[in-house]
Amino acid sequence: VPTFKIVVAYDGTDFVGWQRQAGGSSVQGLLEGALSELDGRAVAVVGAGRTDAGVHALGQVASFALERPASPETVVAAVNARLPSAIRVLDAAETPAGFHARYQARSKRYRYRIWNGPVMSPFERCYAWHVSTPLDRRAMAAAAPALGGRHDFAAFQSAGGSTTTTVRTVLSSSIEPMPATAGSRDASALIVYDIVGDGFLRHMVRTIVGTLVEIGRGRWPPSHMAAVVASRQRGDAGPTAPPEGLFLVSVEYGDI
Amino acid sequence: VPTFKIVVAYDGTDFVGWQRQAGGSSVQGLLEGALSELDGRAVAVVGAGRTDAGVHALGQVASFALERPASPETVVAAVNARLPSAIRVLDAAETPAGFHARYQARSKRYRYRIWNGPVMSPFERCYAWHVSTPLDRRAMAAAAPALGGRHDFAAFQSAGGSTTTTVRTVLSSSIEPMPATAGSRDASALIVYDIVGDGFLRHMVRTIVGTLVEIGRGRWPPSHMAAVVASRQRGDAGPTAPPEGLFLVSVEYGDI
Repeated sequence: VPTFKIVVAYDGTDFVGWQRQAGGSSVQGLLEGALSELDGRAVAVVGAGRTDAGVHALGQVASFALERPASPETVVAAVNARLPSAIRVLDAAETPAGFHARYQARSKRYRYRIWNGPVMSPFERCYAWHVSTPLDRRAMAAAAPALGGRHDFAAFQSAGGSTTTTVRTVLSSSIEPMPATAGSRDASALIVYDIVGDGFLRHMVRTIVGTLVEIGRGRWPPSHMAAVVASRQRGDAGPTAPPEGLFLVSVEYGDI
Repeated sequence: VPTFKIVVAYDGTDFVGWQRQAGGSSVQGLLEGALSELDGRAVAVVGAGRTDAGVHALGQVASFALERPASPETVVAAVNARLPSAIRVLDAAETPAGFHARYQARSKRYRYRIWNGPVMSPFERCYAWHVSTPLDRRAMAAAAPALGGRHDFAAFQSAGGSTTTTVRTVLSSSIEPMPATAGSRDASALIVYDIVGDGFLRHMVRTIVGTLVEIGRGRWPPSHMAAVVASRQRGDAGPTAPPEGLFLVSVEYGDI
């Protein structure tokens, strides 16, 4: 049974999220539908990250097994031909049997984009959180690295999370330096946060970002971030940032 | 009568274009509706460039007169509150009476974005032309400057243009160097063309881009671009590129 690993990008705006569920189009459901047509039987697809409604992916990774032989090129072309243009398979590769996109993921990178200007760009309205009050970018950059390391991230978990432990390792957490952009009249309005970790709790990235924004507003000093981690109390963190600013950028595996 | 100049950005995907017309939402029509509510009478809005359906603007400029006094800040806030989020007034300023956004424009900058990779990015599907066959970016860059200068651009005008003369001055025409991007896995797929001119014929930028793409495909050498200009025959140019890749970037005036 050939097993495949695919890299998938999607604009999450019009989906109920990655996961199949009643009452709405999911990325997983559309992929399964396309692959089932290709394979002539029901195909189950596993995704590395279960992104919420409105969350995007630049490089989600998914795995599945087919019964009929198919080249990676055929998988890319046949699945894309059956998907809406908001979802694209970027790449496919055959893997050893038993490869599981979620269990075997070593780390995932997420990005969160904030548009910090008085007027929201029409081109960012589905791809960034609009915060119109001026944020102290340097305070946010000073607070971000406090997430790095192995910690109990219980303070950043929303109700409804289903994990047995809330300990995770964050490999990097930073506000990106301002890009040297060509031409855009207000590129400086964009604040980009990047985080890499071995796993994430429910709404963890969005709650970290909500906390960073409160620090950027001056409600708390940068040192508050370490205090929230230590307290493990959800009430000490900021609000959950909205989904449209969040992107699953990439998923890393060992040598598969 | 206070006269205003506003800078407007819009995602043109869901509009019939700048210009008011029967059977569809236009940017001009929506702006006029919002301003008419603000002023309590019908307000006519003039745009610097009449962008087609699906064409975007980062910095369209428009002018209008109000009868009631209003601060520029009020104009920005009141109009944005009445517009869909796909259109945003970025800036407003009072101008001398009689200012006319189209007649007084000295030059306009347009940008055209091409996604040259095997798979279209979901995030570019409304903002770039997908050309999947590999293009010779250097040949396109070599051809682009041939448009510069004062020429008769009749070869690049679509039927339906309504100008008395087809002579225009192009101040710059170039393929942008590849950006040094952070992180995007296929930023190299993006080819960006920029052109500044004192005026543009109907579909002129899109027909120039269609010609550049034929040169990029190897159908013609870079020197063909100068030959098309000289021939003034529409049949010697390439096809008209689709609207979704085109952006009106900015409009320049003298000292107003």
